[in-house]
Amino acid sequence: MRIGVLLSGCGVYDGSEIHEAVLTLLHLAKQDCEVEIIAPNILQAQVINHLTEDEIERENRDVLVEAARIARGDIQAVDKVDTAQLDALILPGGAGAIKNLTNYAFGEEECRINPQTKEMILTMVESKKPVGAICISPLVVAKALADTDYTPRLTVGCSADEAAQYIEKELAATHVESTVDEIVVDEELKLVSTPAYMLAESIAEVDVGIAKLVEAVIELS
Amino acid sequence: MRIGVLLSGCGVYDGSEIHEAVLTLLHLAKQDCEVEIIAPNILQAQVINHLTEDEIERENRDVLVEAARIARGDIQAVDKVDTAQLDALILPGGAGAIKNLTNYAFGEEECRINPQTKEMILTMVESKKPVGAICISPLVVAKALADTDYTPRLTVGCSADEAAQYIEKELAATHVESTVDEIVVDEELKLVSTPAYMLAESIAEVDVGIAKLVEAVIELS
Repeated sequence: MRIGVLLSGCGVYDGSEIHEAVLTLLHLAKQDCEVEIIAPNILQAQVINHLTEDEIERENRDVLVEAARIARGDIQAVDKVDTAQLDALILPGGAGAIKNLTNYAFGEEECRINPQTKEMILTMVESKKPVGAICISPLVVAKALADTDYTPRLTVGCSADEAAQYIEKELAATHVESTVDEIVVDEELKLVSTPAYMLAESIAEVDVGIAKLVEAVIELS
Repeated sequence: MRIGVLLSGCGVYDGSEIHEAVLTLLHLAKQDCEVEIIAPNILQAQVINHLTEDEIERENRDVLVEAARIARGDIQAVDKVDTAQLDALILPGGAGAIKNLTNYAFGEEECRINPQTKEMILTMVESKKPVGAICISPLVVAKALADTDYTPRLTVGCSADEAAQYIEKELAATHVESTVDEIVVDEELKLVSTPAYMLAESIAEVDVGIAKLVEAVIELS
């Protein structure tokens, strides 16, 4: 089984959440999956100093190059990946999902999604292959499917959360409230989601949800 | 139990190996340890593009600021940490250990170690508190103890490896050959080491060694 892992940089505030990405790779490896790590070859929207949480002005970093840190160099640009070769796709969370893959974090009037990311998610869903989405990434999946007839069932944890409200009201998806150790499965569209650091207070909690998500994604494949 | 995790940046080629760092945090959390993530507040020796493995000239990054990505911002500078408050210390691997914590990677005539790192390791050993060292980091521990009467027993995996030879011949430590799923324990000095990505071919293999290392460090505390 060959599973794509779509990253959005390297760091919770401007890229992929590192713990979520690494635990995804860990559980895929434990299940003997072949893994293809993927990221769009685009500039990061921002670079955030993770010590102070301030934006570092005038510094540019590339999503693919930074995500390569998590991948130990073994990574492909989204447009170089043949989606037909993938049995499933998983998106870890982190602000990169809503800053680089989409621009949701910036609250602009029009929420946009990276076209290659949208195409990859859409192709997976249309091919009836599972997509797993962790933390805030279900918003990316909902955005990719927003202009279709699909009504995905997803979770980002708490239904009162702004992102959950947005998913329901603006992206015409169904948000399902869940806890940190749960997954939400959309059996029809083969979507699996878990809140991870949207709710987690420790990496051990994140681990429980991601282990379940990886298992469900494999079962649906 | 309060365990320090000493990082050296964020990325296998110029900082901490991310998988090793995250799996250390995971296993400490699973064992209900309180964790203090630490890094020296110094410039990285290099910035490496992890996609191409080339050095990015004229770019400076800070070890503490980049390590904060792995720590999700919850990190302390080495000189701000009261070592007396720590029950044990663990050093994940990655080239940062031999580029930032020491300069071993650059093959200069004199191998130097960051003074704060040396002091922290030495204080732990003198206080009879355990130190765990993963991947190439046992070289840092051996270097910290090189001018003392201690003769640490450590592993970086294969005894034919250049770093293992250096540990034996130049740092007057004892290198013990080991496999990826093993740990080497120096009962007297309370040092625990495991080869991780010095030998590992997958993150699942790294996980086995680090789980054992964390367990042994806690037992020795």
